[in-house]
Amino acid sequence: MRATMIHAPGDIRVENRPDPVITDPTDAVVRTVATCVCGSDLWAYRGIEPVDEPHPMGHEYVGVVEETGAGVTSVRPGQLVIGSFATSDNTCPNCLAGYQSACLNGEFMTTCQAEYVRVPQAQGTLVPVADGAADELLPSLLTLSDVMGTGWYAAKAAEVRPGSTAVVVGDGAVGLCGVIAAGELGAERVIAMSRHQARQELAAEFGATDIVAERGEEGVERVRELTGGIGADSVLECVGTGESMRQALRSTRPGGNVGFVGLPHGVAIDGQELFFSHVGLRGGPAPVRAYLPELIQRVLDGRIEPGRVFDLTLPLEEVAEGYRAMDERRAVKTLLRP
Amino acid sequence: MRATMIHAPGDIRVENRPDPVITDPTDAVVRTVATCVCGSDLWAYRGIEPVDEPHPMGHEYVGVVEETGAGVTSVRPGQLVIGSFATSDNTCPNCLAGYQSACLNGEFMTTCQAEYVRVPQAQGTLVPVADGAADELLPSLLTLSDVMGTGWYAAKAAEVRPGSTAVVVGDGAVGLCGVIAAGELGAERVIAMSRHQARQELAAEFGATDIVAERGEEGVERVRELTGGIGADSVLECVGTGESMRQALRSTRPGGNVGFVGLPHGVAIDGQELFFSHVGLRGGPAPVRAYLPELIQRVLDGRIEPGRVFDLTLPLEEVAEGYRAMDERRAVKTLLRP
Repeated sequence: MRATMIHAPGDIRVENRPDPVITDPTDAVVRTVATCVCGSDLWAYRGIEPVDEPHPMGHEYVGVVEETGAGVTSVRPGQLVIGSFATSDNTCPNCLAGYQSACLNGEFMTTCQAEYVRVPQAQGTLVPVADGAADELLPSLLTLSDVMGTGWYAAKAAEVRPGSTAVVVGDGAVGLCGVIAAGELGAERVIAMSRHQARQELAAEFGATDIVAERGEEGVERVRELTGGIGADSVLECVGTGESMRQALRSTRPGGNVGFVGLPHGVAIDGQELFFSHVGLRGGPAPVRAYLPELIQRVLDGRIEPGRVFDLTLPLEEVAEGYRAMDERRAVKTLLRP
Repeated sequence: MRATMIHAPGDIRVENRPDPVITDPTDAVVRTVATCVCGSDLWAYRGIEPVDEPHPMGHEYVGVVEETGAGVTSVRPGQLVIGSFATSDNTCPNCLAGYQSACLNGEFMTTCQAEYVRVPQAQGTLVPVADGAADELLPSLLTLSDVMGTGWYAAKAAEVRPGSTAVVVGDGAVGLCGVIAAGELGAERVIAMSRHQARQELAAEFGATDIVAERGEEGVERVRELTGGIGADSVLECVGTGESMRQALRSTRPGGNVGFVGLPHGVAIDGQELFFSHVGLRGGPAPVRAYLPELIQRVLDGRIEPGRVFDLTLPLEEVAEGYRAMDERRAVKTLLRP
């Protein structure tokens, strides 16, 4: 099959690789219908995460079941399925507590920018999409594999409630999906922090009621002005830098909550500042699996259109250009068609 | 009046000071019936917080209203009252959100180890105790001014729920009160971390079901053994050091919560470790005011006896010995009778 490999920072190639096969009875092999490039893939692309040796890339997919192991009864060949970037048996204590991304038998997917993918723990991981989903819904369904589920978790972790005020720090695909999530969870006011016009416009179409272009302390001040001097009830931190985390914490009212989903790079949280802020903080790799059934339904119902975060669609063969466009911020997110 | 002053680390004196008077119409003057020494007072006593010039000490009190300003109608002279270590108008947005310790018009009390104390924002701050409370309940009522309310907040911030498992890190007065709080909020299992026999015994009498004497990574391992390898639902961090915070975070299951109430000294939380832990974290100076009515009732009903954390009672004149005994860990907490 054709599959994406990274050889070094900036060096993305599509190569011939062995077709994946069932190795455990809990596996399935899925033929990808659509896959994509994640903002987090850029950490390696930019050399911020080391690339010690060539390795496959990609953790988001929607596809058709090709084959299942003997222990997999919940999906069958031919079904259109979505799986999270993190596999999960959906039966361990962490899964039962709603944290499938901390499954005791789980792992992170790493080979999905390819024609085929082996999915471990397929029984717990894969969720079928009802037959006959229109092809135009595929981009939105694909976002449920990561970014839309991650934005949803950010809003849940930030405890967005009906009538509340939410701030979204970060205007990447996850942040934009966070805007959708905050609105769906009932936030009356959704303040999107963005300085890029196209992203501001999409945020507004996704339901943002206010746009704040300022960053850092100025951004915090602006949020405070918009929230009676107190700060927001909920802040979704969708970047992962020390600056964005500080901005998120300082934009939150005492007793409010920050949900952080940007993988932190070099972030240290000052204990005393967190203490006096009275802000609640929860983050982590999103338990996307928990949200798949309801989010699939919202997409099928046409209630949410997170697929609009894809502003570049390329054949898998041109994946390198997909990375480059995101790295240069010419694209929010690249969809790949194998 | 007689009042406690700190002149330098280790140098605590009782001196003649001017009687406090009403300076704002929102003030009250309270004659203290009992006051005490807090673990946090030891930060200055030990020189960990600088003592730039002599200043009064103390933030916990139960007493009788002596005089009220013109704007105070909720309490009257002669009433027995309790106030939090933090004053609050109880009407600002932060107060209404349940975070009275972040009151926009609040301040921290600092002069309570004395015969009289001026209480700002008395209308919102002071809560009267029903007439006729037995003298033997005074120690328990006094704890509601800080340590019992702080333990209660730790349990609330850690989201202790009926049937859950809670761990308490720290066997000082706050930790011991946290054991009470976890039980009152319905925890089925309360694991107290303590290596001091007398404190272990009191923790058990307060409702701890398990005692863990190990610390650090060994302590974490022991908690994991007791919780099916997963970690506890809720952990109350009642110390405030980097080590105790790490221990708390690592003892919590994915999706669980840490409530931290020990004032952090030199604590930096690693963003990436917090991220992958999926642990929710909330701390801060406890909004004790929010809990006073229900906690007073529990004391009057004889349902809780947090006053048992006082294992040394001295006349105010001997306050220096009260500090010394706590510093040398000969006493958990010292009650002072003016």
